Amino acid sequence: MTIETLDGLAERSPGVTAAAGFRASGITAGLKSSGRPDLALVVNEGPSQVAAAVFTTNRVVGAPVVWSRQAVADGVVSAVVLNSGGANVCTGPDGFLDVHRTAEKVGAVLELSPGDVVVCSTGLIGEPLPIGKVLAGVDVAVSALSRTGGYDAAVAIMTTDTVPKTAHLTVPGDQGEWTVGGMAKGAGMLAPGLATMLCVITTDAVIDVETAQAALRSAVSQTFDRIDSDGCMSTSDTVTLLVSGASRAVPDPAGFTAALTQVCAQLSRALIADAEGASHDIAVTVMNASTEAAGLAVARAVARSNLFKAAMFGNDPNWGRVLAQVGTVPESVAPYDPDQLDVTINGVQVCKSGGAYQPRTDVDLAASREVHVLIDLHAGSEVVTVWTNDLTHDYVLENSAYST
Amino acid sequence: MTIETLDGLAERSPGVTAAAGFRASGITAGLKSSGRPDLALVVNEGPSQVAAAVFTTNRVVGAPVVWSRQAVADGVVSAVVLNSGGANVCTGPDGFLDVHRTAEKVGAVLELSPGDVVVCSTGLIGEPLPIGKVLAGVDVAVSALSRTGGYDAAVAIMTTDTVPKTAHLTVPGDQGEWTVGGMAKGAGMLAPGLATMLCVITTDAVIDVETAQAALRSAVSQTFDRIDSDGCMSTSDTVTLLVSGASRAVPDPAGFTAALTQVCAQLSRALIADAEGASHDIAVTVMNASTEAAGLAVARAVARSNLFKAAMFGNDPNWGRVLAQVGTVPESVAPYDPDQLDVTINGVQVCKSGGAYQPRTDVDLAASREVHVLIDLHAGSEVVTVWTNDLTHDYVLENSAYST
Repeated sequence: MTIETLDGLAERSPGVTAAAGFRASGITAGLKSSGRPDLALVVNEGPSQVAAAVFTTNRVVGAPVVWSRQAVADGVVSAVVLNSGGANVCTGPDGFLDVHRTAEKVGAVLELSPGDVVVCSTGLIGEPLPIGKVLAGVDVAVSALSRTGGYDAAVAIMTTDTVPKTAHLTVPGDQGEWTVGGMAKGAGMLAPGLATMLCVITTDAVIDVETAQAALRSAVSQTFDRIDSDGCMSTSDTVTLLVSGASRAVPDPAGFTAALTQVCAQLSRALIADAEGASHDIAVTVMNASTEAAGLAVARAVARSNLFKAAMFGNDPNWGRVLAQVGTVPESVAPYDPDQLDVTINGVQVCKSGGAYQPRTDVDLAASREVHVLIDLHAGSEVVTVWTNDLTHDYVLENSAYST
Repeated sequence: MTIETLDGLAERSPGVTAAAGFRASGITAGLKSSGRPDLALVVNEGPSQVAAAVFTTNRVVGAPVVWSRQAVADGVVSAVVLNSGGANVCTGPDGFLDVHRTAEKVGAVLELSPGDVVVCSTGLIGEPLPIGKVLAGVDVAVSALSRTGGYDAAVAIMTTDTVPKTAHLTVPGDQGEWTVGGMAKGAGMLAPGLATMLCVITTDAVIDVETAQAALRSAVSQTFDRIDSDGCMSTSDTVTLLVSGASRAVPDPAGFTAALTQVCAQLSRALIADAEGASHDIAVTVMNASTEAAGLAVARAVARSNLFKAAMFGNDPNWGRVLAQVGTVPESVAPYDPDQLDVTINGVQVCKSGGAYQPRTDVDLAASREVHVLIDLHAGSEVVTVWTNDLTHDYVLENSAYST
């Protein structure tokens, strides 16, 4: 597989409209007091309507998640409507009714079945949506639909995000090229099990439902599930994959999964890069783990340590806090010998065999936004990376501001 | 059981010398660059030398923990020597040798077996102790031993603590009164499994080894294991109970366990009250849980949420963040119906049946340091409380300051 384009965060990158067969829009429905865009619509014009989705594993979920799980259950989705400015979570039966009315409205205007409309909402928990504004906004969003509307859609789903997040990848094949593109939002409440966010991915490849579902599960587990900004799992996470088949190219499943994983990885990295108040993006890599699960458990334990993350903010390569977190993982989960642990930070091995090695003053963290922490367990051959952020004054500031 | 005295944080509260049969001291050995006291000694003059201890469950532990586990294994301890200014963790074979030399020194000066000396250290990980200063300090500490030295000892084990923590309780009995007293340090790295800290508890009651061990395990599980300042488990946690039997009073095991639990609860509460940079002490109480383990899992999940803790710092009764954390606990651990959850914050029920109820603006968090969050699972009858702190600018500041 050769990568043709990978624009990432390039200006007005097409995102969900990079692939053929999709129209999108992002408009202002008036849900945000800031007056910024807050309603996005993505429509699959086919010929295929295959879809797959992955949702939060939180037991407390928003009404949109309850609705959308049902909508995608038959593997057919024609449109996704997303709003920022309100999560519609913990809003009771009225909240569910609001989702239903939103899907009915999209279905009526676009002449689709409401049951083929996925609904996603993001914002504050516990407040009802101004449903009149949402329904009026759907009319505006439908009239704004465009084959180049992916960027506007990515802007409309932003909350505390400072930049829209889009990515796309075009792959050549025997039957012609095909494309995977996507958008995501999320700048806090990022945690495994699914990283908290809304994400829509589109492709014009020809993919059946089973392949779409398996590819999405695999891609998410390798990407969104391995970013952990602040250890907090949301109630609204939704990743939806829409397949138009408009390219008529039929990729092999492995090639499609690889391309999808690459787009998801690009979006994941963009989420971490824009995490609330962060000054460092930190890759915690565990090498020579006995199993992938063992490496993941150790990497997540380190990535979730407030003491470690505060040290990173202070540009302090405090490897003692790394080892203290590694030590919290039970032996049944991750076998290793504490006296064999090595830690390297930005290329300087500060800890060897569980003790001090090169001086920590040799590590210069202030110079780079990216920090690479490498933990060698000497217990196997698996390698796992989890991305996180540092714990900063700005994180506390953003998340302690009164919510109303 | 009637409580006679419970002085808590009273000035020059005797702590470990409240009970008869103990001498203690706290002196300056020169381990801290600040010149503050940094070496404490507690000696059991008997007639009993019974002891029990509980240690961190971290797999990465300091040399003092390795030594002290062995020292207490036979149920006999004559003295505890504690230093601040260096944790002696991740210091290799030389670090263990330093512990051995410290115990030998204490044994030689006091004419005790080194194997009956528990050693505790707290401070930065990965730096060797200036062992010459420690050994010279032991001579000074022995000459300073006094039957009223408990307060000085409590001062000498402080690190980022702003106040020494002591507590004691005297209980009347058929054979005369008996006393439990103690001291603790710790202002960060507090987490379950053991709350990170050093703690020495003394009693002049007559208690056998088995009762001492069982009572200490029970008391710790109800107190230190239920405070969680920042979710970070330390490498050095040690709680040691020394029994002198000097009162000749033989309490029933249940009465002793109750008194010990009360002293541990007092010390636990003092640790939370002095947690690094905190502006609120937060009691997360889960009621009507199906089991104690279920309630504990839910309470800990909430107590560890950075988003929740930052909201508390902002005096924002953001119950949505409480529910989002409750939702992360698997059903196999804590059965409940998300649509039945109630949340009350400082007496105002802000969430009923999983949705908004009384206005959150009715909750005034700014007025009090203590915050009480009550979560009703409607799934049983167990009640569990975990104490935590808010996430503040000062926490980030203190923990991001360069460690050298």
